[in-house]
Amino acid sequence: MTVTYSRCVADAGLGTFSRLLLRWKGSIYKLLYRELILFTVLYCFFSWLYRFVLNEQQKRQFENLSMYCDRYAELIPVSFVLGFYVTLVVSRWWGQFESVPWPDRLAALVGAHVRGVDESALLTRRTLMRYANLSGALIYRSVSTAVYKRFPTMEHLVQAGLMTQEELRHLEDLPSPHNKFWVPCMWFVNLALRARTEGRINNDVALTAILAELNSLRTKCMKLYGYDWISLPLVYTQVVTVAVYSFFLACLIGRQFLDPAQGYPGHDQDFYLPVFTLLQFFFYVGWLKVAEQLINPFGEDDDDFETNWLVDRNLQVSLLSVDEMYDSLPVVERDKYWN
Amino acid sequence: MTVTYSRCVADAGLGTFSRLLLRWKGSIYKLLYRELILFTVLYCFFSWLYRFVLNEQQKRQFENLSMYCDRYAELIPVSFVLGFYVTLVVSRWWGQFESVPWPDRLAALVGAHVRGVDESALLTRRTLMRYANLSGALIYRSVSTAVYKRFPTMEHLVQAGLMTQEELRHLEDLPSPHNKFWVPCMWFVNLALRARTEGRINNDVALTAILAELNSLRTKCMKLYGYDWISLPLVYTQVVTVAVYSFFLACLIGRQFLDPAQGYPGHDQDFYLPVFTLLQFFFYVGWLKVAEQLINPFGEDDDDFETNWLVDRNLQVSLLSVDEMYDSLPVVERDKYWN
Amino acid sequence: MTVTYSRCVADAGLGTFSRLLLRWKGSIYKLLYRELILFTVLYCFFSWLYRFVLNEQQKRQFENLSMYCDRYAELIPVSFVLGFYVTLVVSRWWGQFESVPWPDRLAALVGAHVRGVDESALLTRRTLMRYANLSGALIYRSVSTAVYKRFPTMEHLVQAGLMTQEELRHLEDLPSPHNKFWVPCMWFVNLALRARTEGRINNDVALTAILAELNSLRTKCMKLYGYDWISLPLVYTQVVTVAVYSFFLACLIGRQFLDPAQGYPGHDQDFYLPVFTLLQFFFYVGWLKVAEQLINPFGEDDDDFETNWLVDRNLQVSLLSVDEMYDSLPVVERDKYWN
Amino acid sequence: MTVTYSRCVADAGLGTFSRLLLRWKGSIYKLLYRELILFTVLYCFFSWLYRFVLNEQQKRQFENLSMYCDRYAELIPVSFVLGFYVTLVVSRWWGQFESVPWPDRLAALVGAHVRGVDESALLTRRTLMRYANLSGALIYRSVSTAVYKRFPTMEHLVQAGLMTQEELRHLEDLPSPHNKFWVPCMWFVNLALRARTEGRINNDVALTAILAELNSLRTKCMKLYGYDWISLPLVYTQVVTVAVYSFFLACLIGRQFLDPAQGYPGHDQDFYLPVFTLLQFFFYVGWLKVAEQLINPFGEDDDDFETNWLVDRNLQVSLLSVDEMYDSLPVVERDKYWN
Amino acid sequence: MTVTYSRCVADAGLGTFSRLLLRWKGSIYKLLYRELILFTVLYCFFSWLYRFVLNEQQKRQFENLSMYCDRYAELIPVSFVLGFYVTLVVSRWWGQFESVPWPDRLAALVGAHVRGVDESALLTRRTLMRYANLSGALIYRSVSTAVYKRFPTMEHLVQAGLMTQEELRHLEDLPSPHNKFWVPCMWFVNLALRARTEGRINNDVALTAILAELNSLRTKCMKLYGYDWISLPLVYTQVVTVAVYSFFLACLIGRQFLDPAQGYPGHDQDFYLPVFTLLQFFFYVGWLKVAEQLINPFGEDDDDFETNWLVDRNLQVSLLSVDEMYDSLPVVERDKYWN
Repeated sequence: MTVTYSRCVADAGLGTFSRLLLRWKGSIYKLLYRELILFTVLYCFFSWLYRFVLNEQQKRQFENLSMYCDRYAELIPVSFVLGFYVTLVVSRWWGQFESVPWPDRLAALVGAHVRGVDESALLTRRTLMRYANLSGALIYRSVSTAVYKRFPTMEHLVQAGLMTQEELRHLEDLPSPHNKFWVPCMWFVNLALRARTEGRINNDVALTAILAELNSLRTKCMKLYGYDWISLPLVYTQVVTVAVYSFFLACLIGRQFLDPAQGYPGHDQDFYLPVFTLLQFFFYVGWLKVAEQLINPFGEDDDDFETNWLVDRNLQVSLLSVDEMYDSLPVVERDKYWN
Repeated sequence: MTVTYSRCVADAGLGTFSRLLLRWKGSIYKLLYRELILFTVLYCFFSWLYRFVLNEQQKRQFENLSMYCDRYAELIPVSFVLGFYVTLVVSRWWGQFESVPWPDRLAALVGAHVRGVDESALLTRRTLMRYANLSGALIYRSVSTAVYKRFPTMEHLVQAGLMTQEELRHLEDLPSPHNKFWVPCMWFVNLALRARTEGRINNDVALTAILAELNSLRTKCMKLYGYDWISLPLVYTQVVTVAVYSFFLACLIGRQFLDPAQGYPGHDQDFYLPVFTLLQFFFYVGWLKVAEQLINPFGEDDDDFETNWLVDRNLQVSLLSVDEMYDSLPVVERDKYWN
Repeated sequence: MTVTYSRCVADAGLGTFSRLLLRWKGSIYKLLYRELILFTVLYCFFSWLYRFVLNEQQKRQFENLSMYCDRYAELIPVSFVLGFYVTLVVSRWWGQFESVPWPDRLAALVGAHVRGVDESALLTRRTLMRYANLSGALIYRSVSTAVYKRFPTMEHLVQAGLMTQEELRHLEDLPSPHNKFWVPCMWFVNLALRARTEGRINNDVALTAILAELNSLRTKCMKLYGYDWISLPLVYTQVVTVAVYSFFLACLIGRQFLDPAQGYPGHDQDFYLPVFTLLQFFFYVGWLKVAEQLINPFGEDDDDFETNWLVDRNLQVSLLSVDEMYDSLPVVERDKYWN
Repeated sequence: MTVTYSRCVADAGLGTFSRLLLRWKGSIYKLLYRELILFTVLYCFFSWLYRFVLNEQQKRQFENLSMYCDRYAELIPVSFVLGFYVTLVVSRWWGQFESVPWPDRLAALVGAHVRGVDESALLTRRTLMRYANLSGALIYRSVSTAVYKRFPTMEHLVQAGLMTQEELRHLEDLPSPHNKFWVPCMWFVNLALRARTEGRINNDVALTAILAELNSLRTKCMKLYGYDWISLPLVYTQVVTVAVYSFFLACLIGRQFLDPAQGYPGHDQDFYLPVFTLLQFFFYVGWLKVAEQLINPFGEDDDDFETNWLVDRNLQVSLLSVDEMYDSLPVVERDKYWN
Repeated sequence: MTVTYSRCVADAGLGTFSRLLLRWKGSIYKLLYRELILFTVLYCFFSWLYRFVLNEQQKRQFENLSMYCDRYAELIPVSFVLGFYVTLVVSRWWGQFESVPWPDRLAALVGAHVRGVDESALLTRRTLMRYANLSGALIYRSVSTAVYKRFPTMEHLVQAGLMTQEELRHLEDLPSPHNKFWVPCMWFVNLALRARTEGRINNDVALTAILAELNSLRTKCMKLYGYDWISLPLVYTQVVTVAVYSFFLACLIGRQFLDPAQGYPGHDQDFYLPVFTLLQFFFYVGWLKVAEQLINPFGEDDDDFETNWLVDRNLQVSLLSVDEMYDSLPVVERDKYWN
């Protein structure tokens, strides 16, 4: 359910980005409103405490505490660490998108080089592409919660037409505790070799090209697996989270409006709600939310990659490419600029 | 209508960049003047309100509010978040330019390996290149508003000579809901295979090289598609926009010149127009405009990629390469440095 | 023992990252608690000294010193240098992960192109893959302390089944003082050539593809070796460390709560424990810990790459690929979408 | 006339970089002295105005204005935007250097695969390399002012021996409005194909390798063309320039030494020349100069790439490689370590 | 003499990096102690001047100057420009390491494809590898002062066994003023072609693979040459150096302890030695030293790449690979996991 807004911002006009502020789906408001409400409630609680519960002497102490918090909260370099951290998360996020395996290139080669219009040839082409898609689906199951929900067991993959019962049995019989996404790749290799032996693939250059393409698909699968396995170090995420959270804990007390009658510098007016602290909250926690949303783009956030759509699209396009489209060509005629 | 100014800045002299300040087309002034006028008008409105409408007590409250806004507006780290965000947008922008598919390399291979001077060979070469261009045009239609306006329906592509009626019918008959830019690629593959069978392409290495080149073109198309599909997360854009806008909303009040007679620190002179706030506006909103303009470089901004020009140039150059230029060679003679 | 937490952060909800704060394994608390205790103890020592040991005049001097430290500690741009340094370390860390050699691609090619079901062919395939794994293991021994502990001598590699006694003898007989991880690669080359001569590999394109794949594996090994050999310049690490440490040495004195009775600005309340300085410590030293942990990801930290697991997984998967999986294929049958 | 100083900084000793401060060619002084003089003169003009021309009341106003400028000039985040902008320019600059086409690799392949020692074979080899160089020269003419000055018309390319009259005529006859740098590439392709047909290139793998190499040369040419065509968005450059210039306009007034007798804070001493403002000018405008110089490295700045040298070097080396060096080999004898 | 410390930081424990602080070789202390002593001496000189030489009125002026310097020194954004500059230098430094040519991959291909056990075949293989190494050595001579000192004349290369007298004569006879590192590459090409003609290389795919590998080695050589030729623009280095130096010049005066009796704010205590200014010096100049050391990693700094070791290692490993290791293989026997 990726949120695409490229079209709205094609041309830079008066406040182009302002149009984006009114969206709800995938928006910062949707992600943030709970935290914002929580923060406001807590702020009001402390405000109520200070104004109505504490006695005079406790008020003085609270005021001291508040000014102390205000002064030292500035020491936490939230914007600095968020800038570097979010940049890192964004680059990993795009790296993950670029590792998404698309079988289109492979389909072109299989459609080109595995010749024949009999059923057996067709079966070979379709099965080859199904194996490539199956390998991707196995990886998605292990990295994407959305795909995992759709295919909670391997049986579901069979029902979805990505594999057959026979293949499932083979897969489960293989004695290995490790992720088996590479097994369909080996089936692909074996089937391609059989096609070469039977002459459906009629030269070694083509076979090598197909295997190279399969291998680059496999590399992408392994990259996805790597991104999932090697998260950003927990330590870094914790440091950033603690920085942001402790900053706003300090703000809960430090940004209270103190009694103007006491004449503390910078406290000569009581506005009840600290608009700018809320803005700051909106801003910093929003920035952190960017990281929370992008750190694993294979979930079910509004802005995550639509892996289930990918599974369907890739299967359909690859089967179309090697079946209906095989050797199909519109009449080749002179184009308009033929002189 | 890309704005190219490389030539003006070839040599660094006295104020090289100052020459660029006087341009209008693609300039910051053109992009920004509306926002700047709006901001100035709003500022003057508040100024007028403060000076002529409010009574004395309201003035004191306004002054308090103004100083509060001024102090806390500084808390919003606009420059920080803009720096990181714009850097990100710029790197995506260049990534998109590098994904633009140029069929030149493919034309060289088709011109080299698809042999024959009869009409059928010529037809094959021209059609192959037309397919490659058509694939690019289909992608452009889906990512570029400029190209979409030029070819609002597929029929327009036929009229422009990029495809034939027959091909359009084939394309529409294909039962798939997904973007069909890959279909001409499959036609290319099938036509290349036919050329191989007929012996026009006389060896398998050449065929594989051609298909590899086609696949790398296709990969570029998919990258463009990916950039369009997976926008920068909406959340990030919203956070940045809210930061910049709320900063200047606070400035509207916080940067008013307060009555010098009240003796507020830093308010001992009344200059009526806050030059530096306008400069800051110019500067920060200008920086945001860079992002607004680059986030989708396939629109019709002054500085967007000229995709329509690309469509024409690529079609012409590829047809020239495989038609007029086929086997055409000036007389090979001794060069000037011969022994 | 990599700490994987992708699954916990798949969806961004209310305080997604807050869930991560309660982990212990691989956490910042586990890494930092000793330093934090040390710092607190030292702080309390100075506090005790100031409050109970010093006489009045010494107290005044201490107060002067304290305020001096506080003012100038701010001059050390800790966050700046940490931001750049950690970004550098993180990019090297990921570069190292991307250089980890996975023999999967090679296994696919060996399984495809080295034909034959007799024992000799099987032996060739298994040995080829064993050589590739051995080469990786030799590199791991030299870059990873975890692997080194598992294989303290070459004899252990023999016992683990990665090499034979005969091979060890050959390896040790080779007169070269340099790291010999490349020797099994040359054996691989020689064995592949023998397989080509004997016709098990039946064409030159396949042989070249296999050798190219081996070479890219070898390149990854050399990259790991390079990362290990060329550390980040010691100077940079020292500068960063000195900056952080000296900042907190200054804080030990500069952040003491001074006697409120003396009326120093900003010292009107005594909270005994400087919560914000501890937070700052947690934060800056935690950031440094990220660097300490990532600078060599082949150690035994909670978050380091599991090289020993890699050695086992790679050996098993490559042997499976070329042995059990050789020419093994489930029955090819019509898939669900067969029209 | 690139300024190379690697050798001076090979070893880090006492003030290694200080040695570089005394250079004039390509130095910051040479680039900046005019701006610095201009700024100083303007500063002195305002200083003279304030001290000798204005009456007392005007002086007070000037002082107010000056302090206003001083306070608000700080609001412009010059260093921030310069840091990000210059980093961007530097990365494009290096990207441009990496896109410079070197025909060495192609020369090696042409020298290897186009066999024969008769004049016709030699002619083929030389002409092939001349075409590759011509293609580069055509691109340089369109991106580099230095090369354009050397070859203002195509006729000059003929005179320089890069093309023949006949080729010029062919080039001009081709009906296309677009840059024709790709035409010699097509001639190369056609000549290579002829060589293949005539048997001078005796296998298809070699031919494909040569064409692939040519295509990667061509890609580099197109990258240079792209860098030239798609400048950094004008908007960004203008924003940065306006930021720097307006900052120093504000400094002209804001950094004046005000009459110490008036007792303004921070104005208790009159040093006449604001050394630190000049340093700041030197520093910020110098940083901007880095961008001005690198934004188009194909001009005639001291530090620009020596494109004319490249044209000559590449032509000579490629002709040498395929002519004198063809099949030339010193006697192959036992090396020193032969045992 | 690269300083490798990966092993010491394999595990993050209590103050992992603190262990590195005690090293001398390649350390910041070794690089910096001269500058630090110089700075301290100068500081003491000014201190002595102020305390003992100046009369009362001059003291007052010095104090004014000092406070002026202190206030404005802050205006120089040293940390900002250093952060960006050092990041740039570090990325070039690693880019240079990645361009170091390792002939291992080429040796594998030569060992694989150049067949034969007679002396002539052996001679061919050894000579091919020697040429590849010679090409690297010629580049090192021109980029690395360490290698240049070892081989001040070409004659030294002959003595070191990298080339023969005959080859030197050929090299010197070639009429070209440009760097001739590419000449041995052409010899390689010619010798490889001869081996192909004589049938030692028995197929065209292998030949093409070998030439492709040679070309990628050559590309790395050219990259090293490019890094050496195109230094970071002198302007950038000068701007950074001037910023750092002028900052500390200002500190020499601005950070003097002024007479507490005068009651200047922030000058109520005299500590004689400005510990924090020295720390700042240590820190900023140390950061600059990182750049000084990395800007040319082919010198003789403690932390530079050991190019001489590389020359030796590469020659030995490549000769071993194609000579002793040619067709050498331990007995192929069943591995431990053979079912």
